[in-house]
Amino acid sequence: MQQKAPDTSKVHIFNGQTLLLDGGGALENFHIAYQSFGTLNKEKTNAILVCHALTGDQFVRGTNPITGKAGWWEGMVGPGKPIDTDRFFVICSNVIGGCAGSTGPATPHPQTGKPYGLDFPVITIGDMVRAQACLLDALGIPDLFCVIGGSMGGMQTLQWTCDFPERVFSAIPIATAARHSSQNIAFHEVGRQAIMADPNWHGGTYYETDGRPSKGLAVARMTAHITYLSQAALHRKFGRNLQDREKLGFGFDADFQIESYLRHQGMSFVERFDANSYLYITRAMDYFDIAADHGGQLARAFQNSRTRFCVVSFTSDWLFPTEESVTVVRALNAAGVDVSFVEIDSDKGHDAFLLDEPELTNTLRGFINASARARGLHDDFPDPEKEADRA
Amino acid sequence: MQQKAPDTSKVHIFNGQTLLLDGGGALENFHIAYQSFGTLNKEKTNAILVCHALTGDQFVRGTNPITGKAGWWEGMVGPGKPIDTDRFFVICSNVIGGCAGSTGPATPHPQTGKPYGLDFPVITIGDMVRAQACLLDALGIPDLFCVIGGSMGGMQTLQWTCDFPERVFSAIPIATAARHSSQNIAFHEVGRQAIMADPNWHGGTYYETDGRPSKGLAVARMTAHITYLSQAALHRKFGRNLQDREKLGFGFDADFQIESYLRHQGMSFVERFDANSYLYITRAMDYFDIAADHGGQLARAFQNSRTRFCVVSFTSDWLFPTEESVTVVRALNAAGVDVSFVEIDSDKGHDAFLLDEPELTNTLRGFINASARARGLHDDFPDPEKEADRA
Repeated sequence: MQQKAPDTSKVHIFNGQTLLLDGGGALENFHIAYQSFGTLNKEKTNAILVCHALTGDQFVRGTNPITGKAGWWEGMVGPGKPIDTDRFFVICSNVIGGCAGSTGPATPHPQTGKPYGLDFPVITIGDMVRAQACLLDALGIPDLFCVIGGSMGGMQTLQWTCDFPERVFSAIPIATAARHSSQNIAFHEVGRQAIMADPNWHGGTYYETDGRPSKGLAVARMTAHITYLSQAALHRKFGRNLQDREKLGFGFDADFQIESYLRHQGMSFVERFDANSYLYITRAMDYFDIAADHGGQLARAFQNSRTRFCVVSFTSDWLFPTEESVTVVRALNAAGVDVSFVEIDSDKGHDAFLLDEPELTNTLRGFINASARARGLHDDFPDPEKEADRA
Repeated sequence: MQQKAPDTSKVHIFNGQTLLLDGGGALENFHIAYQSFGTLNKEKTNAILVCHALTGDQFVRGTNPITGKAGWWEGMVGPGKPIDTDRFFVICSNVIGGCAGSTGPATPHPQTGKPYGLDFPVITIGDMVRAQACLLDALGIPDLFCVIGGSMGGMQTLQWTCDFPERVFSAIPIATAARHSSQNIAFHEVGRQAIMADPNWHGGTYYETDGRPSKGLAVARMTAHITYLSQAALHRKFGRNLQDREKLGFGFDADFQIESYLRHQGMSFVERFDANSYLYITRAMDYFDIAADHGGQLARAFQNSRTRFCVVSFTSDWLFPTEESVTVVRALNAAGVDVSFVEIDSDKGHDAFLLDEPELTNTLRGFINASARARGLHDDFPDPEKEADRA
């Protein structure tokens, strides 16, 4: 076994050259903020790329220095966790367009020195993935043992398997889809309209002012947040419970706990996220449509793929319902690709992939360990029965 | 058969005295804008009250003078329609708190002469119904042959049967619930936050300015509008179709038809609706919880009721899912009340009750005609078999 690297939360910056973009044009001097955990083995066959969701970042575990809270996938990534930093070299990078250190609309434009704002080019999931591939090149990693992510992270995962099939040994797209649905575009559009309606947005140039379009961004977040949960989870957690009061207030304060919770979600989000990044990243998701890039045939996207897939969905996820995963699985089957599919029974909605969901933990552990054995990684890898006991 | 009254769209104003409110206090000199169609029989036993939804109004049929479009239930109300204006005296009134002529936040305060704004009291569905009861008193109508409505109209329908059981012969609550769910409160709260975030809102005093919180109200409407449809309907109607272009624009214009459609929905809504009314009416819906008013026991609300119920839901309605109607039906059964329940298979979502849905038309026609026979109305009422042919 390799010697363990210290499990720090140091952020590294990769300085790229020119990133050619799907929309035409290029992003010059782009950079990517990333974290890594564990040690790359000498065969360079144990790298796992963890892809984050819309409002995620590179702080997948450890303390997030922006929020002071635990990393967004603390339960899944770490020593002894399914994405085991004792055994794998784990990379998580902030997407292009993001606001946690990678090049995005808040980054100074190389030519003017002022933040890009809306001069930032509209990017795609494909652009995000191509940037990550540049990072891997720089790290000297020829291929990934595994790419994994939920929601937009799942989109990146699928994009990786289509654009760089030879560089992906296994892939775990979770709570995602091969294309963004009409309803999901609709919710994103509402969020963007809320941001752009905020007079502090100033056509995206607010960086040069004292203000920020915080109210608009908060409304966008509140709307989106509802879609991440489920009717059942909201009923279970909040129902019609009142907030700090015995009876209805007959006013517009937050009478109900759910109102208070949503307001809090909105307010805490604006402290950590850039409104323009929200515009660009939602747009990238809207544009995501793998089949469209392959003559309308999703199966064609996976032709000759030798990647091992594990597709995961949740019963109560109405943003990326199981049916979307089934579409992916059918296409993989049609292309003759090795795929497992697990629909997890959960009432936690779309956000289930971020939460403590034992069946997800066990599924990932089992699939990752089996894939590691298939790749001949670590002779001392535990066998699944013992693993089940441990879980 | 009675002589037919002319089918005009004249708006009548009922001037009430004092409306005592659930939140305490009273609304002085309130008025209600309403329309009526058909003729009240001399026994006064053929009146139907149609209750409108959140953004509805009294213009249930004929031309709506505000929008220039057809009334919101043109397909259901009229000569020969299920709510047959040749046979019934049909009343539809704008709710208290509304903005189509009834007393609401835009109405001048009797004491100051200035629009109420946020000095308007927070009202409830119970208050709306009590105001309608005053209108019936003024019209000399002792009881209603039928109360009917969808969504918030269904809430009023249920409220009528609880608060005035002796005045309701039959009731048809459609696509509704006995209490507003946590998720629905959440969507309303987002809408309110969008309005209140608009700097033109000015704490609700915008009537005195040149501006209106139109951007905020448009965002509220767009969010709500998504919830009125279904994933399937959006996919069928719009999918990922582009709007007036061959390929993606790589910008923030409306690339997709769904975006263009939503923007249009938002913009046309603000021309006909008052932002403060939106705040008050959504609040009234949030507060709706029949069981809470009856010791937590929904069945108790319907005890000794002699009203005949027909409860209707739609399979794809995720705002007021069938399960909410089933809760009402169970309570009615527990209270030994006469109830029919129809779940209509439709992919049109919550808005199905407003759209051309033949099974809804047939259901209402059948139930209303059967109820009319049960009440001994019109010996010449057609029998159901002939009706089925006609439908």
